[in-house]
Amino acid sequence: MSRIITISREFASGGRELGKRLADALNVACYDQKIIDMVAESENMSREYVAEMSEKYLRNFYPATIGNSFAMTSSFVDGATHIAVAEQKIIKQLADEGSCVIVGRAADNVLRDKSPFRIFVCADDKSKVERCRQRAKEGEDLSEKEILRKCKKIDKQRRTYNEMYSSTSWGKASEYDLCINTSGKEIKALVAPLADYINLWFENSEK
Amino acid sequence: MSRIITISREFASGGRELGKRLADALNVACYDQKIIDMVAESENMSREYVAEMSEKYLRNFYPATIGNSFAMTSSFVDGATHIAVAEQKIIKQLADEGSCVIVGRAADNVLRDKSPFRIFVCADDKSKVERCRQRAKEGEDLSEKEILRKCKKIDKQRRTYNEMYSSTSWGKASEYDLCINTSGKEIKALVAPLADYINLWFENSEK
Repeated sequence: MSRIITISREFASGGRELGKRLADALNVACYDQKIIDMVAESENMSREYVAEMSEKYLRNFYPATIGNSFAMTSSFVDGATHIAVAEQKIIKQLADEGSCVIVGRAADNVLRDKSPFRIFVCADDKSKVERCRQRAKEGEDLSEKEILRKCKKIDKQRRTYNEMYSSTSWGKASEYDLCINTSGKEIKALVAPLADYINLWFENSEK
Repeated sequence: MSRIITISREFASGGRELGKRLADALNVACYDQKIIDMVAESENMSREYVAEMSEKYLRNFYPATIGNSFAMTSSFVDGATHIAVAEQKIIKQLADEGSCVIVGRAADNVLRDKSPFRIFVCADDKSKVERCRQRAKEGEDLSEKEILRKCKKIDKQRRTYNEMYSSTSWGKASEYDLCINTSGKEIKALVAPLADYINLWFENSEK
């Protein structure tokens, strides 16, 4: 039986790193940004267009003001919806192909029927600022306040995206199988027992 | 350096069992109901009085209606507050004595200065009903609805108790170091990697 692990994560909590390291430890594939490439290929669109529409969909699907909603033309909605549907299809295909880790894209809810192991990754503000600074592009020099504003904005988008698929509360412990706080920790140092836990969890489920 | 593990838990999620098993695996003491005995002894009160006042404190400290608040006599408030303060003192003493697991009593917030490893344990309704039925006293035969009503009521008390010590949100993933969902799982089968994770987490903190 396939073992599907989904990772929901606060921005800059290290969820993507954890996903990759877990996938390595469990010897399964990890899908993250690659899903965008796959959608682009399957829909015969450019990667840039898919990435941009996917992000705009997040931003605009639940408009904060009536003004914003008027700004959504029907061709935009059609395009963005088309891509969201294609994303879901790809996620389901990947899960059908075999055991894997899927980071983001509300995969925990998209794949609900497959009883995935649902992880949520979070971290405190200090760790998020450090992580963003370590990964900043050359020349990028955001203040702590700007970094945290960016984190909050992206987390709000992720919460909204989750709400499109489910009435569950993003970040509420009981919506996941394991929630991991990476604050001040080296993810690399903590992966082995998590992989053991996941293996035992699936064994215990399959009994 | 002492390693303190605190366990907050939804009612009937198996948090107490997990605490005991983790303490065994980590070879440290586990404090749970024993705190009530220790308060009774230190304050020279009967165990029954301490347990009752402790529970009433939970129920009445944040009265749901003004009517309820009038019902709290000052001698009741004095007695209940006295016991809550004694509980905190005992929890701090236990943490000072050495590594341990402390279940409940908002120990994660009481011991904030000691940087404990903060666990939250949750489970779905089906598992809670099963657990309650397995542990029911002879002759107790509550319906599923009655069991879930009881679970909700006690969780509300726990949430309120937590709010006395902190502005943090009870059950929100980012308030804990690890949140564990025990739904449909044998806790016994999952303890070993959790103990490994906790050991590595402390080693990584102490670097």
